[in-house]
Amino acid sequence: MKLLKERILNDGQTIGTDIVKVDSFLNHQIDVNLMDAIGKEFYEKFNNEGITKILTIEASGIAIGMAAARYFQTPVVFAKKTESKNLDKEVYTSEVFSFTKNKTYQVRVSKRYINPGDKVLIVDDFLANGKACQGLIEIIQEAKASVCGIGIVIEKGFQPGGAEIREQGYKLESLAIIDDIQEGNIKFRG
Amino acid sequence: MKLLKERILNDGQTIGTDIVKVDSFLNHQIDVNLMDAIGKEFYEKFNNEGITKILTIEASGIAIGMAAARYFQTPVVFAKKTESKNLDKEVYTSEVFSFTKNKTYQVRVSKRYINPGDKVLIVDDFLANGKACQGLIEIIQEAKASVCGIGIVIEKGFQPGGAEIREQGYKLESLAIIDDIQEGNIKFRG
Repeated sequence: MKLLKERILNDGQTIGTDIVKVDSFLNHQIDVNLMDAIGKEFYEKFNNEGITKILTIEASGIAIGMAAARYFQTPVVFAKKTESKNLDKEVYTSEVFSFTKNKTYQVRVSKRYINPGDKVLIVDDFLANGKACQGLIEIIQEAKASVCGIGIVIEKGFQPGGAEIREQGYKLESLAIIDDIQEGNIKFRG
Repeated sequence: MKLLKERILNDGQTIGTDIVKVDSFLNHQIDVNLMDAIGKEFYEKFNNEGITKILTIEASGIAIGMAAARYFQTPVVFAKKTESKNLDKEVYTSEVFSFTKNKTYQVRVSKRYINPGDKVLIVDDFLANGKACQGLIEIIQEAKASVCGIGIVIEKGFQPGGAEIREQGYKLESLAIIDDIQEGNIKFRG
């Protein structure tokens, strides 16, 4: 996605060889018009899949999920990372290790919001080691629903998550794949 | 907001006398069209305030912020509750006590995203004791920006947050104010 790649080059900040900060437009401050274009792009890539629900994970996935759900006209569900006394007791759970936060956390989705037969599109802002995404796949399988697509805004192509998910046979579409970061220069795939 | 109140009555679940769960459409599963109507309603209430930025708090505030920002055509910034190695070192912080989660946490916003002179609209899904909202007000003051409005989806009128914020002179607009929950019956103000 040209608009996104240009924005990453213009406003992203690299740190070392594996981090690109995009918090001026994607995951702390959000540019709603860019987000809308991202939602539309996912719709174009997955609108033949009969999607009935979009699943993402708090916090930064929520904006992506919202933007996509407007085009698909489906509900968006966000998996929760923290305990809350307001969350249902009946939940699907999976364990996820976060490299960014260096800890394992439990991801939860109320059983009421992913139903058997749902055709689910997973969306998220980043895919690196793919642990969050694998956690969401597990939850969808537990619910006897189908993973009908995975839409990622930025994939770190030099980390193994994307390759592993494609090997598992899922339709994974990343709007920008970064293959290399060297001395502040970002190299995109393709 | 009639549409919202009807939805709360139809799909909300009360627990005891102080909790109304709206996670089927507002803060776990999200109805994007209702959210869009909420964004539009905030725009109608605050579009004369010269808003330059929308500030909310993760996680469930993000969807509200996104919906509002589409109408205001401003960036939306969400305050972070967790440490991340990708967050700037230069941050505004405030301490917030959550009654729902029964703990104090630190709220952070990068200094780059709230600037002196910004006219900020705060939005959030719930206002009860008002601690999160007060935390965001503190951050805006620290940044030498102005709080030009506070838009809340559901205010618990039987808890003190709303009254305190109005006494401080802020323009607070809640789209539904619940004054009482008795035996599963929700009584709205007005």
